[in-house]
Amino acid sequence: MKGKGYRLLETTFLAEEIEYTGSELRSHFVREKAGIAGDGVIAFLGGCRVAGAHLVDLEDVEEQHEIVAKQMLHFIGEHFQCSLREGNVRLRLLASIVKETLEAMSSGIAVTRDGDDLFVNDRKLTVAICTASPLSLLFHLGVNVNPSGAPVSAVGLKKFDIDAKEFGFAVLERYERECESIERALRKVRGVS
Amino acid sequence: MKGKGYRLLETTFLAEEIEYTGSELRSHFVREKAGIAGDGVIAFLGGCRVAGAHLVDLEDVEEQHEIVAKQMLHFIGEHFQCSLREGNVRLRLLASIVKETLEAMSSGIAVTRDGDDLFVNDRKLTVAICTASPLSLLFHLGVNVNPSGAPVSAVGLKKFDIDAKEFGFAVLERYERECESIERALRKVRGVS
Amino acid sequence: MKGKGYRLLETTFLAEEIEYTGSELRSHFVREKAGIAGDGVIAFLGGCRVAGAHLVDLEDVEEQHEIVAKQMLHFIGEHFQCSLREGNVRLRLLASIVKETLEAMSSGIAVTRDGDDLFVNDRKLTVAICTASPLSLLFHLGVNVNPSGAPVSAVGLKKFDIDAKEFGFAVLERYERECESIERALRKVRGVS
Amino acid sequence: MKGKGYRLLETTFLAEEIEYTGSELRSHFVREKAGIAGDGVIAFLGGCRVAGAHLVDLEDVEEQHEIVAKQMLHFIGEHFQCSLREGNVRLRLLASIVKETLEAMSSGIAVTRDGDDLFVNDRKLTVAICTASPLSLLFHLGVNVNPSGAPVSAVGLKKFDIDAKEFGFAVLERYERECESIERALRKVRGVS
Amino acid sequence: MKGKGYRLLETTFLAEEIEYTGSELRSHFVREKAGIAGDGVIAFLGGCRVAGAHLVDLEDVEEQHEIVAKQMLHFIGEHFQCSLREGNVRLRLLASIVKETLEAMSSGIAVTRDGDDLFVNDRKLTVAICTASPLSLLFHLGVNVNPSGAPVSAVGLKKFDIDAKEFGFAVLERYERECESIERALRKVRGVS
Amino acid sequence: MKGKGYRLLETTFLAEEIEYTGSELRSHFVREKAGIAGDGVIAFLGGCRVAGAHLVDLEDVEEQHEIVAKQMLHFIGEHFQCSLREGNVRLRLLASIVKETLEAMSSGIAVTRDGDDLFVNDRKLTVAICTASPLSLLFHLGVNVNPSGAPVSAVGLKKFDIDAKEFGFAVLERYERECESIERALRKVRGVS
Repeated sequence: MKGKGYRLLETTFLAEEIEYTGSELRSHFVREKAGIAGDGVIAFLGGCRVAGAHLVDLEDVEEQHEIVAKQMLHFIGEHFQCSLREGNVRLRLLASIVKETLEAMSSGIAVTRDGDDLFVNDRKLTVAICTASPLSLLFHLGVNVNPSGAPVSAVGLKKFDIDAKEFGFAVLERYERECESIERALRKVRGVS
Repeated sequence: MKGKGYRLLETTFLAEEIEYTGSELRSHFVREKAGIAGDGVIAFLGGCRVAGAHLVDLEDVEEQHEIVAKQMLHFIGEHFQCSLREGNVRLRLLASIVKETLEAMSSGIAVTRDGDDLFVNDRKLTVAICTASPLSLLFHLGVNVNPSGAPVSAVGLKKFDIDAKEFGFAVLERYERECESIERALRKVRGVS
Repeated sequence: MKGKGYRLLETTFLAEEIEYTGSELRSHFVREKAGIAGDGVIAFLGGCRVAGAHLVDLEDVEEQHEIVAKQMLHFIGEHFQCSLREGNVRLRLLASIVKETLEAMSSGIAVTRDGDDLFVNDRKLTVAICTASPLSLLFHLGVNVNPSGAPVSAVGLKKFDIDAKEFGFAVLERYERECESIERALRKVRGVS
Repeated sequence: MKGKGYRLLETTFLAEEIEYTGSELRSHFVREKAGIAGDGVIAFLGGCRVAGAHLVDLEDVEEQHEIVAKQMLHFIGEHFQCSLREGNVRLRLLASIVKETLEAMSSGIAVTRDGDDLFVNDRKLTVAICTASPLSLLFHLGVNVNPSGAPVSAVGLKKFDIDAKEFGFAVLERYERECESIERALRKVRGVS
Repeated sequence: MKGKGYRLLETTFLAEEIEYTGSELRSHFVREKAGIAGDGVIAFLGGCRVAGAHLVDLEDVEEQHEIVAKQMLHFIGEHFQCSLREGNVRLRLLASIVKETLEAMSSGIAVTRDGDDLFVNDRKLTVAICTASPLSLLFHLGVNVNPSGAPVSAVGLKKFDIDAKEFGFAVLERYERECESIERALRKVRGVS
Repeated sequence: MKGKGYRLLETTFLAEEIEYTGSELRSHFVREKAGIAGDGVIAFLGGCRVAGAHLVDLEDVEEQHEIVAKQMLHFIGEHFQCSLREGNVRLRLLASIVKETLEAMSSGIAVTRDGDDLFVNDRKLTVAICTASPLSLLFHLGVNVNPSGAPVSAVGLKKFDIDAKEFGFAVLERYERECESIERALRKVRGVS
C-alpha cells in the first residue's frame, strides 16, 4: 500500500472529524481511514454517542448505559496476532500514556487511573474498551474534549486549555515508541533457570 | 499448599530482608519464599548488587553496567502460561502502578516513565527486567529506597519520606487488583466484525 | 459484578428450568444466567430438543440426527483464552467426572466412556459437544434424567434413583476442584532437559 | 525414520525392562527407545526409585518424598507444540483411561481418581507428573504392579491378577484412540456466536 | 467418518468440476466435498469468477479488481489450530511447490514467485489468498489452465501442454509430504541455549 | 541499539569469515555479531565442521553424521515469539528463496528441493536445521561454496561461477521482503464463515 519500508506499528491523526457511534470499532477501520498496512492506531476528533447494539461492554448493556460526549479525542487501535488478554494489558498501558501526557502538558493536574478509566478530581475523563474481531484485537479509547451530555460527572481537555490535536499527536507518538520498545525489550534478555 | 480457595494471583510482602543479586530471578523463587501456588508477586527489602553472569539485560552486559543500590524495595513476579511479549507489557503496567502509588502517597512529586524505568527530576528511581524460565515468565522491579552506590544519578523513597513497607503493600495490592480486573475485562465484551 | 474476591472459575446451579435448544450454547450465556465474571460452568434442569441449524456437530448434521430428551441435567461451560483442542480434552475430563460421580452415588453401576459420550449397559446416558465463539471456548454436556423421546437407546438418572440436583452440584464441585488443581499442577514442577 | 505413513501419535510397548529413576523423563527418550517420529507414548515394566534432584514435583521436594516401588508399569509420553496446561488436562484423561481399563479388566474393582492420582480402597495405585522440556510436553504415569517399598499405603496390578503387559497394551491403545478422536472432534463443529 | 487410521492431513482430487466464486472459501467445505476428518486440501477443476462481497483480499476490494479465468485448477486447504501468520507462510510454501512441480513436469519453463503469486515471463499463472474462519485457517490457490477473461496478462497450464489433473495430483502429493515432514522436523532436534 | 527506526526484521552480511561449528546456533548470536535489535538474519562466509555434541539434528546423531565443507555461505536466523512449527515452515521458504536466487543468477541450473534440502543434479547444495532456544526460534542454512570434505556427493556455488557475497545479499534481501509481505498479507483479509 505504501512505498516506504514496512513498520511494525503505524499511527495517523485523521484530518476529518468522525462521530464515534461504536460501529467504527471493527476490523480494518484503521486501514480504511489511514491506509496502514501493519498494526495501527488512528486518532481523530468528533462527538460520541454509543447505545444499544453497538455497546460492546456487557456491563454497560446490563446497566443500560449510554456513552455520550459532545466532543472527544478518539483513539482506535488494531493489533493482529494479539490475544484479548495481551490487548487488555496494552489498553491499560495506553491509558497510562494518556495520563502521563496530560501531566506533561499541564503541570499540576492529578489524574488517577482505575483499570482503563482515567479521572480528574473524581470526574471521568475517558471511556475505553478492548475487544476482538475474528482476525484482530481492537480497542477504543476516547478522551473527553467537551463532555457535555455525558451521563456521569465528567471533564474534558478543554477545561485544561489543552489543544486536543497536539495532545493526540503526543499520545500516538508515545504509544508507537512504547510498542517498539516492548519488541526490543523481549529480544534483549538472557533466559533464566 | 494452602487451605484457602485457589486464587489466580497472590502477593506477599516478605518479613525477611534479602540482598538481590540477580540469582533470585528464577522459577519458583516466589513459591519458595511465600508458598504461593498460583501466579505470584513478592515484595521484600534489601540491598542490590547485580553483576557479571547474573545480568539478564544484554544492554547492561554490552555496556558493562553493574546494578547497585544500598537499599531497594524489590518486586519479583512470576506468571505461568504468559508470553514474553505480554510479560513486558505487564511490567510496564507495574511501573505505571509504582508511579501512581508514589504520586498518591506524596503529592507534588512528578514521576516520569520511560518504558519500564521511572525517574524523578531525571534521577533514576527504579531498575526493571522481564525474562523467562523454560516454564514461566519472570520479572524484577526494584525501587530505590537508599540509592547509595548506584552508578548513575539516582533517587530513593527515603528522600520523599515514604515508608517502603507501606509503599510495597500498596503496590502489591494495586497490581493484584489490576490483574484481576484484566481477567474480568476480557470476559465482559461482545466480539465485533 | 460480584463483591467477593475474583476466582478463576465459578459454578452455579440455576434455580429455573430451561429447555435446551442449542441456542444456549453461545458466548456469555453463563454470565447472563449466573452473573459469573470469570470462566464458568452452570448446571440446570430442562428438556432437550436440538435440531436443524442449532446442531453444532457436523456428524449430526450429516446424518440428520436430532437430539431429544424429556428431561436432562445440562452443563454449559465457558472458558476464555482456551484453544479448541484444550477445550475438547477438558470436555472428556468432565465426562469422566460425570462417570465417577455416578459411580460414587450409585455403587454397582458400570458406566463406560467413549470420548465425550457415556453409556450404561450400551444405553446412551449423555450428549456432549465442544465448540468456540469468536471470544471463548464453549461446551454443553447433557445427562439424561428422563430420556423419553431420544432417537437412540438411552437411559437416565431417574432409572438409578439419583437426585439430579444433588448429582449436578457434585459434578460442578468436582469440575471446579479439577480446574483449580490443574492450575496448581502446572505451577509446581521443575522443567526437564 | 519409518517406512509407513506418518501418524499423529504412536505408541509402543518396550520389550526391555527399565528401572525408572526420573532421568527418563526427558525430551526424545520416547524417540530413543521406540524410534517414534511423531508424538508418542511408550510403556515398559521396571522398578521405580526417584529421589533428590530427579524429583520434578516440588511438593515432593518440599516434603522430602521418595517415589519407590518394586515393579511398575510405566508410561512416558511426549507431545510437541502442547502447552503445560493442556498437558496436565491430558494426563488426567490418561489417568481416567487407566481407571477405566482396570474396571474393564477386573469387574468389581472400585477405582477413585483425585486429579492425576488413582486409588483402590484408599491405597495408592499410581504416581504421575507432567512437565516440559524446552521443546516438548512430557509426562510420566506409573501404575504399581508390585508396590513393595512404597512410602505410602499402596496397591498394585498383581493383587488383582491383572497381566501388566496386556493392561499396558490396552491403555496405549485407548490413549491413542482418544488423541485421534480429540483431533477429529475439534474439526467437526460449527462455531457459535 | 472413515474406517482407515487417522492421519494428520489428507488430500483429495474431486471428480466434479466446481466454479470458484469465493463462497467456497469457508470452513468445512473441504470436509463437505471430500469427507476429510483431519486437516485437508482438495483440488478440483472449474472456472473462476470472484467479485464484490466474496473478495477476501482488501487490496482487490480497494482497487475494484475481479478475479476471472475460464478454467483453473483450484486448491482449497483448511488447517485447524493454525495461526494466520503460519498459514500465510504455508501458502507461500505451497506456491513454491506449484512452481517446482511445473518445472519438474515441463523442463525449461522459468517460473518466478513473488510472495504467493507465480508468473511465467511476467504473465500471471496463479491467484492466492489466505484467511481464517472463527475455527480454522483457510487458503485458496488457483492455477490458470485457460486464463481467458483474466483482467491482467495471464498464462495457463494448457499453454505448456500440462495435464491439469496429473499436475494437481502431483501438487497434492508434494504438499502432503511437506506437511508431514515439517511435523517430523520439529520433533527431531535438540534445543540450544 | 541503533539510531534508525525500529524494523521488524533486519539482515546483515558480516564482513568477517567465521567457521561454523554448530555452537553459533544460539540465542543472541545474531545480535552479538550484527547489533540487530529485532528479529534478524545474518549471512557470512566460512568453513563448516559440525560434529558430536553440536549436532542438533537427531537423525544426524543417530546415523553418526558429520557436517563438513571447506567453504560455505552461512545464514543464521533468529525469530522471537515464533513456534517451532512456524519456524520450520519459514526455513523451507528460505530454502525456496535460495533455489529461486540461484536460478535467477545462473539461468539453466535445475535446483530441486526436498524439505529444507537443495540439490543440483542429485548433489547436495545445502544443509539446514531449525531449533529453539528457551526464548527464540533459530535456524541455520548453509550453502556450499566449496564442498570439499563433505561426506556425501555435494556441489557448491563456485562450480556455477556465482559470487557468494552477491548471492548472500540477494537471499537476505528476498527473505526480508518475504517476511514483511507475510506481515502485510495477514492484515489485509476479511475473515470468512
